[in-house]
Amino acid sequence: MAFKFLLMPPQTDQSRAIAARVADSVPSADVVVAETLDDARREIVDADAALGTIPPDLLRHAENLRWLQCPAAGPPAGYYYKELIEHPVVVTNLRGIYGHHIAPHIMAFVLGLSRGFQTYIPQQVRREWSRMGEGSTVYLPEATALIIGVGGIGADAARLCACFGMHVIGVDPRREETPEGVSEMRRPDQLDALLPRADFVIMTVPHTPQTEGMMNASRFKLMKKTAFLINIGRGATLKLDDLVDALNAGEIAGAGLDVYEIEPLPEDHPLWNAPGVLLTPHRASVGPYTQERRADLVVDNCRRFAAGEPLRNVVDKENWF
Amino acid sequence: MAFKFLLMPPQTDQSRAIAARVADSVPSADVVVAETLDDARREIVDADAALGTIPPDLLRHAENLRWLQCPAAGPPAGYYYKELIEHPVVVTNLRGIYGHHIAPHIMAFVLGLSRGFQTYIPQQVRREWSRMGEGSTVYLPEATALIIGVGGIGADAARLCACFGMHVIGVDPRREETPEGVSEMRRPDQLDALLPRADFVIMTVPHTPQTEGMMNASRFKLMKKTAFLINIGRGATLKLDDLVDALNAGEIAGAGLDVYEIEPLPEDHPLWNAPGVLLTPHRASVGPYTQERRADLVVDNCRRFAAGEPLRNVVDKENWF
Repeated sequence: MAFKFLLMPPQTDQSRAIAARVADSVPSADVVVAETLDDARREIVDADAALGTIPPDLLRHAENLRWLQCPAAGPPAGYYYKELIEHPVVVTNLRGIYGHHIAPHIMAFVLGLSRGFQTYIPQQVRREWSRMGEGSTVYLPEATALIIGVGGIGADAARLCACFGMHVIGVDPRREETPEGVSEMRRPDQLDALLPRADFVIMTVPHTPQTEGMMNASRFKLMKKTAFLINIGRGATLKLDDLVDALNAGEIAGAGLDVYEIEPLPEDHPLWNAPGVLLTPHRASVGPYTQERRADLVVDNCRRFAAGEPLRNVVDKENWF
Repeated sequence: MAFKFLLMPPQTDQSRAIAARVADSVPSADVVVAETLDDARREIVDADAALGTIPPDLLRHAENLRWLQCPAAGPPAGYYYKELIEHPVVVTNLRGIYGHHIAPHIMAFVLGLSRGFQTYIPQQVRREWSRMGEGSTVYLPEATALIIGVGGIGADAARLCACFGMHVIGVDPRREETPEGVSEMRRPDQLDALLPRADFVIMTVPHTPQTEGMMNASRFKLMKKTAFLINIGRGATLKLDDLVDALNAGEIAGAGLDVYEIEPLPEDHPLWNAPGVLLTPHRASVGPYTQERRADLVVDNCRRFAAGEPLRNVVDKENWF
């Protein structure tokens, strides 16, 4: 079935490359690349499908639109606005393609924190040779990882945690089967009962109405004093001021973060030198092949759309994921 | 067969605990704990076996001694002196029991270096948000780890590297079989041909006549400019001044070190802030159960000695390992 596939502006080298791949691979797709919002306003009227972000005033004209491919796994807040949620259009996202870089980044935090890098690397910067005692490490075969959000990233991280002998508990609202490496699969309503068991709480959740600010003062109080918090998902899910308080009060032992409520993290933010932290500047997803995987997924969904087959990564719009 | 088992001074809580374990578990062992060198000089005359370090002037009186248990995997230089090498006593060491902590420490370096911690954690200390480009990470499924020294630690590290999809080459002078995770098993005389292939060169070798200073200027020149050097074995195997020169010249990309030619590393040493380094203060072996594993091995060897069975971890004295 022929269909019109509209790429929303702004265009980048990456979006143009995806347009070319779709044009090459899916003959029934009439690929239209909108350079400006004015172009898009004209073209969206009879578009069947689109890739990108659609502002509300354009969505009003999208009378034929049946499929929207979101250009991220977890787009910025505001992507899923009321009119889009109410519109019949099916939205798909890019979840599931980032684990190959982000899971090793998670493990860099897990291993670094377990071996004392949060103390030793700042000491190195100060040219200081000083050793913590025997109890300063985490022995992974006796440690429990609680992975909140067992999508592609969380499942990859679970497998790797298990390679180090860790016990892995997964928490996810929708995953039915138990992936390799996960010993216990639980639902989010059990989170408060699970937090006291974890030595590493690993957050890989998108920003949704349910996850916004979910890690906060009361949740940190449920964690072990010796436990570490890792967030490589979305900054909005973790209240940074509460985290700084918990670290300074010794309620938890430390944290490895790649995402923040405010990015860039302001120079005067107390998190930078809070005790026990390892911080990276939103770089966990960086590495080769991400663009290829993104294009592969969009091409596959175009092929499915043309063939009338179910699309991959359909989003529950009300829950933003 | 009854035998006299002498614990050489100085005594520690750990050595006393081992003495008690042997006395409990091996009834035929007459366990003697020498508090001073004078005690030891008297007791060694009719000792059949000993644990610890024997100075040359005491070894002269050790006429019955048939077994000496070295209290480390790789003892300090000087442990294997000429008279000990020529003495008929069989020496065993503690190799093989440290992998459970050191292999995760190796992986903390591998993952930290692959995800840019050597840049981002010093930046964190300076409260600086600044991102490296796409090419700044190492994609582990396309990376090769060259593990020099495939004993207990190296084999554990190989298995873990393989969990991340890495290709693993092992180099060892004595291991016959290929452990899990190793794709190619080679001999030390092939090292120069293998170094150009490695993205991570991981050294887990003891200090022996063959390994002293083995990583030096000419070997760093054989490595890729993008490669990282990790040493968690013995400081004497790596020439620090050559490493600093190689890092400053961009001949290699960085290093993760836990051991050093000089320990503590002097405050004014240029390595502290050489480009691309992650440094820990000789803490890779720290963690629980090491003492238990040490005692288990000594007890097992005492039992074997009493029964006339082959001992575990027999050392090639001339090669210190």
